[in-house]
Amino acid sequence: MTVIVQKFGGTSVADIARIKAAALLVKKELDRGNQVVVVVSAMAGTTDKLANYSLSAFAYGKKREFDVVLAAGEQITSGLLALALQEIGINSQSWLGWQLPIITDSNFNNSKIKNINTKPLKDCLDANIVPVIAGFQGVYQNEITTLGRGGSDTTAVAITAALKADRCDIYTDVVGVMTADPRIVVKARKIDEVTYEEMLEMASNGAKVLHSRAVEIAIKYNIKLQILSSFIDEPGTQLITERKNMEEHLVTGITYAADESKILLRNIPNLPGHASVIFAPLKHANVNIDMIVQNAKSGDKAVDLTFTVPKAQVETSLNCLRNLKLPWFSDDNIFVDNDIAKISVIGVGMKTHSGVAQKMFQVLAEKGINIDVVSTSEIKISVLIDAQYMELAVRSLHTAYGLDSIDGENTTLGNK
Amino acid sequence: MTVIVQKFGGTSVADIARIKAAALLVKKELDRGNQVVVVVSAMAGTTDKLANYSLSAFAYGKKREFDVVLAAGEQITSGLLALALQEIGINSQSWLGWQLPIITDSNFNNSKIKNINTKPLKDCLDANIVPVIAGFQGVYQNEITTLGRGGSDTTAVAITAALKADRCDIYTDVVGVMTADPRIVVKARKIDEVTYEEMLEMASNGAKVLHSRAVEIAIKYNIKLQILSSFIDEPGTQLITERKNMEEHLVTGITYAADESKILLRNIPNLPGHASVIFAPLKHANVNIDMIVQNAKSGDKAVDLTFTVPKAQVETSLNCLRNLKLPWFSDDNIFVDNDIAKISVIGVGMKTHSGVAQKMFQVLAEKGINIDVVSTSEIKISVLIDAQYMELAVRSLHTAYGLDSIDGENTTLGNK
Repeated sequence: MTVIVQKFGGTSVADIARIKAAALLVKKELDRGNQVVVVVSAMAGTTDKLANYSLSAFAYGKKREFDVVLAAGEQITSGLLALALQEIGINSQSWLGWQLPIITDSNFNNSKIKNINTKPLKDCLDANIVPVIAGFQGVYQNEITTLGRGGSDTTAVAITAALKADRCDIYTDVVGVMTADPRIVVKARKIDEVTYEEMLEMASNGAKVLHSRAVEIAIKYNIKLQILSSFIDEPGTQLITERKNMEEHLVTGITYAADESKILLRNIPNLPGHASVIFAPLKHANVNIDMIVQNAKSGDKAVDLTFTVPKAQVETSLNCLRNLKLPWFSDDNIFVDNDIAKISVIGVGMKTHSGVAQKMFQVLAEKGINIDVVSTSEIKISVLIDAQYMELAVRSLHTAYGLDSIDGENTTLGNK
Repeated sequence: MTVIVQKFGGTSVADIARIKAAALLVKKELDRGNQVVVVVSAMAGTTDKLANYSLSAFAYGKKREFDVVLAAGEQITSGLLALALQEIGINSQSWLGWQLPIITDSNFNNSKIKNINTKPLKDCLDANIVPVIAGFQGVYQNEITTLGRGGSDTTAVAITAALKADRCDIYTDVVGVMTADPRIVVKARKIDEVTYEEMLEMASNGAKVLHSRAVEIAIKYNIKLQILSSFIDEPGTQLITERKNMEEHLVTGITYAADESKILLRNIPNLPGHASVIFAPLKHANVNIDMIVQNAKSGDKAVDLTFTVPKAQVETSLNCLRNLKLPWFSDDNIFVDNDIAKISVIGVGMKTHSGVAQKMFQVLAEKGINIDVVSTSEIKISVLIDAQYMELAVRSLHTAYGLDSIDGENTTLGNK
């Protein structure tokens, strides 16, 4: 029998009405003769409220306690959705991280899943009970842990892998993965198919619809995955292994991220291992480093090194660097820029086509937008620009790469 | 070393400011050289909100899931108070019901505590860690259970008993047990000392400050207990074994309850076991029967039987009775009255004094208030009256028994 994991995000379970609507989506899948395992996020706004209580009010507490507070959100939804299913005659049972258990490492607030005991889930399916799993949470030796950003996506994909389920459906408040954020680009279109690689780059570079950790697990375990709306009944975005008509399809989407700051270390001695010395303490402090760019030639005595970190981690990063007490380090050769945006152009098509980068530079130049930093991967070009040009850059690139919907009508926008 | 269990009710942890204030009350006790174990309720309003989500929205769900939802409230507070303690330099750790564990029976929504594993708590105290226990919740074979009304009080007293702690301090938003509800009787006074027996009667007959289940456990395990305000720093109400000047003290307090309905079964055959036949299914349906009054003489062929149940359980009760399909039973001999109030006069003094009941009847008669039903215990007289006279009755009795504060000034009212 086909086993489907359905994951409902925060807006898809935002209130009792939405929870009842989610229950009907479960029923629909059951009526097709499939077996369903559900994973839920906290009701929209709940996690923010709990985080506000705990993280904002108490800066110095132990991470363990933050997780006790935060995990309550998904606990509430799992119980409520189980009740909603029971009300429409579907046998259902909620499962919390510690109950299955979903065993994680001890890294509170940002744990990684080590092992999932699927036996209770299989027993449920055998007994025609729909298990509703609280996402985002696990357990480490009798302690509640949480998985960090995108945690419920991660739970859903990890459950799919552990159960060897046939498909993972990620329900959200948009109709799928979009060519760009429709709040910025009115002519953004839904992408019917996106490769795992593209999805990974898009998620890593600002697309919020699915977290990159979840995509990584999906790739690793070869999971069939789709992203679709719980508000509108229409096909979503399928994740696919490779694109058939790669030739026709240079760029798949444009993403942006405005939540990072740029740290430039100027004129640092170009010794073997200098980068390692600098980044080791940042890693130790769990700073989430995104781009790293250095541009020097062999034999240069000094180099400039640029990297980006989440805005909230700038102070931590600077403290880490100062604590190194490196002889060359002073406040005169460290430059922080908070007003930056990262714009990324993503598409597997650029593997086989040159000219994608050149077009990006040209479009931005025509709009008078300076490029500070460039970084590329095989299927992605990212640039850092002045944040005030962010929307303009995204829109211009969206048009330039031929992504605009026909006659400007955006029929696929699922946002309320 | 003296071990004190501090329990903070919902209004005492209603927001971050109150949680920080509660942390300071813990610190005060630690500074006196005592060891402290904390038990918390959900933040005021949270349980209602969660109950509203679950109980109101889903009438037909399994009780198990309601508990998953409801228990989240205390979970949140336990984490937050642990964080608040850490912030002021006190090592602290939250404990949920399943973590200790606090093992209960399988009666979801209204479980009874079977066993508390105190080892983790003792280990905490030995390591100078203040454990903060989520009240109201327990675990039955990997399933979250909740203890029903007054659950956090019950947790606190049970923890005190299990730990053989020296004292249990119940922090609330009033200054202690009052001679009457100060919202009705402006001249109500704080009672400095109340016997366990009196407290049990007061709690059972409408005083909300402490739940009767908690008092029962306190009596059973001989627990030293006091009720005091987390808002105002002044002595609260001590629970005591017996009153020294019983002679001077006829009546300790007046309580009321307006949340019950009266069910009268008229003219039922007076056969041996008739009451048992009637009440067995009600017990089975977990109907919370309060007063039971029957007034017949030996040889009567038929009797009238009156009992009271919570208003919310009237329909359940009637269905239970109808399902019995007793030959004598018809809608003509069953009378339901929702507009009743129970007024109780409580005091150990009445054990040795007659005339307390007579004064009650006289006072009510003078005010033109009819008495429907009378029921007494050794230290209590309860009457059912028309609900519209409730406040008048309480105030009149409060004055008549000499409980009014001098010059009418209510200095002890701790409510905001």
